[in-house]
Amino acid sequence: MARALQLARHGLYTTHPNPRVGCVIVRHGQIVGEGWHAKAGEAHAEIHALRTAGEAARGADVYVTLEPCSHFGRTPPCANALIQVGVARVVAAMVDPNPLVAGNGLALLQQAGIATASGLLENDARALNPGFITRMALNRPYLRLKMAMSLDGRTAMESGESVWITGEAARHDVQFWRAQAGAILTGIGTVLADDPSLNVRLTAQELGIDGEVRQPVRVVLDSALRFPLTAQMLRLPGQILIYTCNNDAAKIAQLAQFGVKVRCFNGDKLALTQVMAALVEDGITEVHVEAGATLTGALVAQGFADEMVIYLAAHLMGSRARALFDLPHLAHMHERIKLEIRDIRAVGQDWRIIARTSPCQS
Amino acid sequence: MARALQLARHGLYTTHPNPRVGCVIVRHGQIVGEGWHAKAGEAHAEIHALRTAGEAARGADVYVTLEPCSHFGRTPPCANALIQVGVARVVAAMVDPNPLVAGNGLALLQQAGIATASGLLENDARALNPGFITRMALNRPYLRLKMAMSLDGRTAMESGESVWITGEAARHDVQFWRAQAGAILTGIGTVLADDPSLNVRLTAQELGIDGEVRQPVRVVLDSALRFPLTAQMLRLPGQILIYTCNNDAAKIAQLAQFGVKVRCFNGDKLALTQVMAALVEDGITEVHVEAGATLTGALVAQGFADEMVIYLAAHLMGSRARALFDLPHLAHMHERIKLEIRDIRAVGQDWRIIARTSPCQS
Repeated sequence: MARALQLARHGLYTTHPNPRVGCVIVRHGQIVGEGWHAKAGEAHAEIHALRTAGEAARGADVYVTLEPCSHFGRTPPCANALIQVGVARVVAAMVDPNPLVAGNGLALLQQAGIATASGLLENDARALNPGFITRMALNRPYLRLKMAMSLDGRTAMESGESVWITGEAARHDVQFWRAQAGAILTGIGTVLADDPSLNVRLTAQELGIDGEVRQPVRVVLDSALRFPLTAQMLRLPGQILIYTCNNDAAKIAQLAQFGVKVRCFNGDKLALTQVMAALVEDGITEVHVEAGATLTGALVAQGFADEMVIYLAAHLMGSRARALFDLPHLAHMHERIKLEIRDIRAVGQDWRIIARTSPCQS
Repeated sequence: MARALQLARHGLYTTHPNPRVGCVIVRHGQIVGEGWHAKAGEAHAEIHALRTAGEAARGADVYVTLEPCSHFGRTPPCANALIQVGVARVVAAMVDPNPLVAGNGLALLQQAGIATASGLLENDARALNPGFITRMALNRPYLRLKMAMSLDGRTAMESGESVWITGEAARHDVQFWRAQAGAILTGIGTVLADDPSLNVRLTAQELGIDGEVRQPVRVVLDSALRFPLTAQMLRLPGQILIYTCNNDAAKIAQLAQFGVKVRCFNGDKLALTQVMAALVEDGITEVHVEAGATLTGALVAQGFADEMVIYLAAHLMGSRARALFDLPHLAHMHERIKLEIRDIRAVGQDWRIIARTSPCQS
């Protein structure tokens, strides 16, 4: 299963919006087939593994990181393929979290007389697909907030001066987080202040993938539709979605000329619950957030921030400098927002902290 | 030399105000003698090592973490002892940083026909005695600031509510830092707000030492002499020094009944440069600071904070909560105070960051 997890990770930057899945077929203690899911619409991990195993799959043990599917999607159900070949046993790391599927794939196999088991290295398997699991469990995407701060928890000087808090190694590291997300989310404030690219500037080789580098969708929250036609992201490859409350047909038409899709909501101001529902509708399950203190503070306060990737620069910016989040007033210690730090490591001259709030992820 | 450094560390909690020194004597590739300095007034590391080596020291190589002394202090010079025994070679990790001594010990040995060298694992040797080295180089003590903060850089809620930011493991870890300091420094604000004990609550066994646990001197900066006679630290073992600008004879007499020494300065308000000079006069070279944002901010701003030991609790306290330091207004990024993070590790449920500002320490 450890090998199957390793194979699944090959799809980290490419399977979107599908889950990352790996599969290993073992016969008489020998690996006879391996596969992983590479891209939506193409063959699932099990099918790749069955192909490489050929006749050797008959009577073999199959290790797969996610319960084999039991339904016809863009490809036929993997459970059927496993039954046809006549494997002896299927071990899944985790059951499919989709409540409409959960357990059906394994049940199909059992009905065909194939032994099944699940739960082997389940935590590792869950960590592969936080977006997929969060969408199934909470009907919203998994949100990862990227932040950079000084050792005294500041993101910018009082003046707003903020460029280059962290070093080059940290900025390079951020690229890998962007690359694995389905979408990069930001607020119009950040677009107006920094005119960011929010793209993936890594090569296929750097990502360790075959084929083209996928640009995540850029989603901009822009209640008043202030998005400037001069924004540099309009000139870069990759889809742009603007969520707004302003139904300005002329502006929407101008943006459409750049290929930008505008989604208009009722009301004066975007509600984050609406935003979450729209992201799911737009096929986004894993979101990388690079935004200012207002949007990140709101996401944290409303419980939508599942994970924080915080780059810590080893300097002090002073107590008047800008804070990491705009959070509503927390009067008492018991109101503190509890996180769990999962990892701290050096990245160049800076340090990276990974913290989780989500009970959904292991 | 690695072994000599290890031996020197045995004195971490006991040598104050003397430096920590270890010594190993090697003959024909075998260790024939070992020693470390345990306590001021008692034998130096070299003498202990010579005693255990006995006759085997003649013609042997001596590894010592600090240049052997050349002057008569409370004990006779170690250089003379090494010459008398007739060792062949002396390797020092570092030269004595005292400008009045620097190199004299090694020179004495050379004049007696003994080969000498220095600089072997010098960085490790310097790390053993930051207080001693800082006093020699800058004529002030080495200051280590202990702080506890949330992941968003806050020390207390807006209300001031602050107890138990960090967990028990972090509070236990703090005890070891206190134990190795010559003094624990705080401000009167902290005494009035928290009535802290500021003592070492570890046993000799926990510290890995023989004999009694030394209580560091508690130094309280208290310009207006507001120190309350009800403070619990008055009832605890250990010396208390109050630095003040208020020459209130009655109050000073009352405090003296508790054994408190009051040092009175001219002016309305204590200047930190005066405080540093007074600490050196009072025999303090390594200071552990547990104080509020006002005093820690002033120490950082005036360049007296050599090291920070920051306990990071994995929660968010919000942008209105109290900041780590009161620092003067830093308007631009280039005014940021640059630190170097030396170590980050988990301590129970919290994380400990060790950062340095001092160019004096390696």
